[in-house]
Amino acid sequence: MQKLDFHPAGRHFLQIPGPSPVPDRILRAMSYPTIDHRGPEFGALGLKVLAGIKKIFKTEQPVIIYPASGTGAWEAALSNTLSPGDTVLMFETGHFATLWKKMAESLGLRPEFLGLPGIEGWRRGVQPDMIEARLRADTAHTIKAVCVVHNETSTGVTSDIAAVRRAIDAAGHPALLLVDTISGLASADYRHDEWGVDVTVSGSQKGLMLPPGISFNAVSQKAIEASRSAKLPRAFWGWDEIIEMNRSGYWPYTPNTNLLYGLSEALDMILDEGLDNVFARHQRLAEACRRAVRAWGLEIQCADPSVYSPVLTGVMMPEGVDADAVRRTIYDRFNMSLGTGLGKVRGRMFRIGHLGDCNDLTLMAALTGCEMGLKLSGVSVAASGVVAAMEYLAAHATPLSLKAAA
Amino acid sequence: MQKLDFHPAGRHFLQIPGPSPVPDRILRAMSYPTIDHRGPEFGALGLKVLAGIKKIFKTEQPVIIYPASGTGAWEAALSNTLSPGDTVLMFETGHFATLWKKMAESLGLRPEFLGLPGIEGWRRGVQPDMIEARLRADTAHTIKAVCVVHNETSTGVTSDIAAVRRAIDAAGHPALLLVDTISGLASADYRHDEWGVDVTVSGSQKGLMLPPGISFNAVSQKAIEASRSAKLPRAFWGWDEIIEMNRSGYWPYTPNTNLLYGLSEALDMILDEGLDNVFARHQRLAEACRRAVRAWGLEIQCADPSVYSPVLTGVMMPEGVDADAVRRTIYDRFNMSLGTGLGKVRGRMFRIGHLGDCNDLTLMAALTGCEMGLKLSGVSVAASGVVAAMEYLAAHATPLSLKAAA
Amino acid sequence: MQKLDFHPAGRHFLQIPGPSPVPDRILRAMSYPTIDHRGPEFGALGLKVLAGIKKIFKTEQPVIIYPASGTGAWEAALSNTLSPGDTVLMFETGHFATLWKKMAESLGLRPEFLGLPGIEGWRRGVQPDMIEARLRADTAHTIKAVCVVHNETSTGVTSDIAAVRRAIDAAGHPALLLVDTISGLASADYRHDEWGVDVTVSGSQKGLMLPPGISFNAVSQKAIEASRSAKLPRAFWGWDEIIEMNRSGYWPYTPNTNLLYGLSEALDMILDEGLDNVFARHQRLAEACRRAVRAWGLEIQCADPSVYSPVLTGVMMPEGVDADAVRRTIYDRFNMSLGTGLGKVRGRMFRIGHLGDCNDLTLMAALTGCEMGLKLSGVSVAASGVVAAMEYLAAHATPLSLKAAA
Amino acid sequence: MQKLDFHPAGRHFLQIPGPSPVPDRILRAMSYPTIDHRGPEFGALGLKVLAGIKKIFKTEQPVIIYPASGTGAWEAALSNTLSPGDTVLMFETGHFATLWKKMAESLGLRPEFLGLPGIEGWRRGVQPDMIEARLRADTAHTIKAVCVVHNETSTGVTSDIAAVRRAIDAAGHPALLLVDTISGLASADYRHDEWGVDVTVSGSQKGLMLPPGISFNAVSQKAIEASRSAKLPRAFWGWDEIIEMNRSGYWPYTPNTNLLYGLSEALDMILDEGLDNVFARHQRLAEACRRAVRAWGLEIQCADPSVYSPVLTGVMMPEGVDADAVRRTIYDRFNMSLGTGLGKVRGRMFRIGHLGDCNDLTLMAALTGCEMGLKLSGVSVAASGVVAAMEYLAAHATPLSLKAAA
Repeated sequence: MQKLDFHPAGRHFLQIPGPSPVPDRILRAMSYPTIDHRGPEFGALGLKVLAGIKKIFKTEQPVIIYPASGTGAWEAALSNTLSPGDTVLMFETGHFATLWKKMAESLGLRPEFLGLPGIEGWRRGVQPDMIEARLRADTAHTIKAVCVVHNETSTGVTSDIAAVRRAIDAAGHPALLLVDTISGLASADYRHDEWGVDVTVSGSQKGLMLPPGISFNAVSQKAIEASRSAKLPRAFWGWDEIIEMNRSGYWPYTPNTNLLYGLSEALDMILDEGLDNVFARHQRLAEACRRAVRAWGLEIQCADPSVYSPVLTGVMMPEGVDADAVRRTIYDRFNMSLGTGLGKVRGRMFRIGHLGDCNDLTLMAALTGCEMGLKLSGVSVAASGVVAAMEYLAAHATPLSLKAAA
Repeated sequence: MQKLDFHPAGRHFLQIPGPSPVPDRILRAMSYPTIDHRGPEFGALGLKVLAGIKKIFKTEQPVIIYPASGTGAWEAALSNTLSPGDTVLMFETGHFATLWKKMAESLGLRPEFLGLPGIEGWRRGVQPDMIEARLRADTAHTIKAVCVVHNETSTGVTSDIAAVRRAIDAAGHPALLLVDTISGLASADYRHDEWGVDVTVSGSQKGLMLPPGISFNAVSQKAIEASRSAKLPRAFWGWDEIIEMNRSGYWPYTPNTNLLYGLSEALDMILDEGLDNVFARHQRLAEACRRAVRAWGLEIQCADPSVYSPVLTGVMMPEGVDADAVRRTIYDRFNMSLGTGLGKVRGRMFRIGHLGDCNDLTLMAALTGCEMGLKLSGVSVAASGVVAAMEYLAAHATPLSLKAAA
Repeated sequence: MQKLDFHPAGRHFLQIPGPSPVPDRILRAMSYPTIDHRGPEFGALGLKVLAGIKKIFKTEQPVIIYPASGTGAWEAALSNTLSPGDTVLMFETGHFATLWKKMAESLGLRPEFLGLPGIEGWRRGVQPDMIEARLRADTAHTIKAVCVVHNETSTGVTSDIAAVRRAIDAAGHPALLLVDTISGLASADYRHDEWGVDVTVSGSQKGLMLPPGISFNAVSQKAIEASRSAKLPRAFWGWDEIIEMNRSGYWPYTPNTNLLYGLSEALDMILDEGLDNVFARHQRLAEACRRAVRAWGLEIQCADPSVYSPVLTGVMMPEGVDADAVRRTIYDRFNMSLGTGLGKVRGRMFRIGHLGDCNDLTLMAALTGCEMGLKLSGVSVAASGVVAAMEYLAAHATPLSLKAAA
Repeated sequence: MQKLDFHPAGRHFLQIPGPSPVPDRILRAMSYPTIDHRGPEFGALGLKVLAGIKKIFKTEQPVIIYPASGTGAWEAALSNTLSPGDTVLMFETGHFATLWKKMAESLGLRPEFLGLPGIEGWRRGVQPDMIEARLRADTAHTIKAVCVVHNETSTGVTSDIAAVRRAIDAAGHPALLLVDTISGLASADYRHDEWGVDVTVSGSQKGLMLPPGISFNAVSQKAIEASRSAKLPRAFWGWDEIIEMNRSGYWPYTPNTNLLYGLSEALDMILDEGLDNVFARHQRLAEACRRAVRAWGLEIQCADPSVYSPVLTGVMMPEGVDADAVRRTIYDRFNMSLGTGLGKVRGRMFRIGHLGDCNDLTLMAALTGCEMGLKLSGVSVAASGVVAAMEYLAAHATPLSLKAAA
């Protein structure tokens, strides 16, 4: 395997909102030789990761681990709980919410797509009051599930899942609550049980710091019951057999062994740091990033500060600037990858990922790359965002770095 | 990641018929840092592996690479080409053929399951004449697809796919031909185009020497056309969008990047050795293994020498011997994993894998482990199978090892 | 780094008496990123490996770790304790004893080389009575050190170091005792303190299962005192500064950081298995190997069963057979490296290593390779050594494998 | 091997002037299994690295590769060419020149230590006129060698080796020229043959981007001739036998195999980038770093711009500031290692390494860490050095990054 990076020397900075940089420690764990997926070592590994991943979802209920990437876990959430022709209420928060809706259509469901008008819906999170109103109107209970995205990777906007739960309850509606937190898990606080989520969908290549290739369905008893009568055809995605086999640490079909080694290591890393410390670290870096954007005089894609994403920041370009040309300049000159604008905001913004195995200096490296790239692209910036971010970071140490200093 | 192997020292011998031992070289390739799946390096990687994998399937038509394990590719083959309620003709060659049939049922298809009576069907390959007869009888063409397994991992029996093609043609029947060669690809000769297969299903963790986690559908134009009218719901598995995006080396959703690094390396290794040399190496090791079994006085599960598998050998135990107890003894004492008997032959046999990154001495190590384990389990053997295998191997060098000697 | 192995597929069997096969686990540990050799992490690593290595030497006294391969540690032992023109008593046990003597000459010492006549000296260990007699005759105490090899890598003969100590004491002679156990350490029992050794020399690439590159001097207080008046010029090899800096876990000059990562892991592996279990495992594999040699009707190089090496077995060829031609055939056909005959026995023997990360099946693989290679080379063997070795191994389980079975 | 880094998450920034960060690609190459150092693969590897390393030294003459760290190669240069009591002329450029002089004393040589007075000598390179004057005075030719350091790692000052050569020639003096470019090689231009150097000493852990553990002597025919009459005792370091064995790609004693894998990969990387591009990249990053230091209002340790080091920059602290306290703050808060002040400048300065696998954004990350750390330590800075460095880097693209952009 020769060097893939097209640049002559030095580390590539992967600052997209996922796949996030995989720590060397996890890459090393993944290079453990593949073992018999029916042998005793595998059972011990399986039980360990199945127990550990529950702590990350904050659930006591089963979490299914699929040997498939995140898009598959979306399909699994729908196909296990719904029947052909079922109406589902979805909310347009951005590109990925839109793709999930498209998938629902492909599977023969009838998605209703709520949302704020125009681009505005891509700058604010889910509006629980709109969901509540729609559910109240659905007196016949034709809506079988409410599907929302917790952290919109395309925009850098999160949504208040607890409030969505309250909205459903306030409407007295029996719909299931399905949540995608593919890019939120293990970066932003998430509480599957406490928030009463029925199926939470997630993936490996974001806050879990793994390569893509495994994905998750955390479920509720209500979801499991729904699966008994759900009529969408399913085999690979079927929960029952997996949950049954998982009791002893195995899977009904060949699991993704080497990614499970990585998951085992990632769980050790995250739980050793402490989930709350992990969340605080993400919040701190995100705030530093936003201060840089504001100092540059650019607009943050997320228009509601209460739902800023701790995972990524969307940076809007001034009128007339092609965001992808800026990204290309930064890639060519500074060996850094940024996220492109997707769907409705293509060419209008770029996204800075600050998730997973990220710390003060990797963020600062990213911000210097952005600042130099903006200038080289002819975007005039009001002031140095790098200086603003340094001021914030120097003034706000993490408790853990202070502890290390003691 | 601590040592998973429960044994105190020395290498574990993974002699199951897959996952096969992953060469260090591939594990190293997989530890290359995860990159942006939308960046230029990824496109170059994608184009390389998409071109290379076609050579392995011997096809000029598209090969879809799924970020999911092999069971998913079974589902993909069915859901892209068939509609709810369609009749499919399947053939019972063993446990995996049976599981595929079960999957077809789960997806709402109507499988007809041909086969020889009792255990006999598990000892011989597909019978093309039975297929031809059934298709001739289906004058209404209600059968939409014929589904067969090329190399039955549960038994060590292969099937003559070209003969199945001829049978369909002889019957003048329009059914699609769907073939599972999950455990055959890159170990046994396989010719997707020449044999007129419509969908070939395969996976990474066998002859490709990769960990589990990616799987394949090689398709035909006829299959692609069928997919346009096929009504089974599908999204993750849908071919069209993947084929479209693959033109530039990308995928519509997040691919399994690090396993693609491994695939790139595996393709280099296999094509450098030469497919014909790879096949000859497998045949030679398989014959040595069978000579050992015969010398022991034990029966080979495959009853028809013309369809012996080059991938694995099923070894039947004498009456009254619990094959799994023998396997456990071998595992505990000699740090070697063998394949268990599955389904109808549970406890009656074990399976020796001799595929992928295997050579003379790893096979001989495996056979010494078996011979010692049989004795320790109280199974009396007629003569030393190890000696018989050594005689064969010493007398039959591979062309490549002779070349190395020159 | 492309594949170096010239063979097309499958694992290479490295059965030379060192460098021994490096376990994957150690290779992974060695790929941890290089750190600041003056930083706090390094200090913690240094203290750990310095404490752990003492357990392997069975000493409470300092062990110096050199960032240099084993030959350097020979020089260090001499140059720290001796002065130009000093007489040292050495004993010809084989090629490496001869090389050490040659080094002593290069450094300006006057070695006296005791030994049995002709090839006989290469088939038996050190003769303590000859040493005692020589020391008794040295009433002027011109002999400053006695230098012996504990495990002769060139022959597969060990020496009784405790007996050498008793011989020195019986002669009432003040000479230092310098011992090379480069290939014995962590495979054969060794007791630096109990046996009263003044300097023990060892290296990384044998029983410690590391690549070559670090080496050791375990010292005594008497040796340290001798170093104060020793006049051989030295700088890199000087003990004092290293011992001083080691107190805090650091080295006076840049240490071999990544090999120290490997050493840390090796110590964990060996101490987890338990030194006594490690020694018993080596003894068991060595006995199986010797049974194979005897069954073939070939002679074992070591003529005294009480000093058989647990590390390697020297196999003598019949008259007229070129041992190196046999080795080449085995290498070319079976992808296995054996040790060549060195010095006086060049072309007359080959050496089978069975040390370090070795278990029953890797040994059996090696023996099958030898047996096939002998036949292909036209060496007629009396009976199957492989069968003889299997009989022994099946009848003598290690306590640990029995434990695993429980 | 658990995580050594004491910080909770994110990459450590190793910005000391060596060991420099080892690229993942090299760490992967080093994890190739250890092979037989007497087998055919090893010979091929040996020939490759021996040929490649000559290109780095710009020499057609032998380069000896020692399985030992750099301090050993210092000793080798002296002990192969000199005799006890020989006078050598050395020049005090900093801490490492001082250590080399101390070693010469330990080995029984008589070093004469030229230098500028006080701290001034640590801020300017070798003064060729002083060397010429001293050699002219030595009409008896008692001086046998002139020893200078090309890139002083302790100060960030280089020396003009060609001018030293001219000085020796101008004096018509037969002394050998011995040069230490341990930290300069493969970062700063170096021409062993053109500059008429007799022995060049170097190591692996700097511009070659390897872990510590191998070191080098590039020699001249004059040096080889000197070695024939040199009387310092030597064995491990002796050139003759190594040069002889190297002809076929082997070493007389066990080489450091896995570091040679790394060297092979490093040579590929450096020669693929092109030596001139490598040097230009270092110059560019060094200039950016110096602009930052000047913007902060701090003094650069090197007082002569014509000999600024491209490898590292020494940053002097204002009176009353403990440089090591600043370093500790930066380490604790920002997970970055900087070099400490050594010897005469202990506590007065810190050193920023910008060598080897370094690019714009890793340098910028380092500079942000310094700037924040200075402020947190109460060092008032005149202006943002980060902004100054960004301005320089944005305005001065490397030819290669421009090419990538094309």
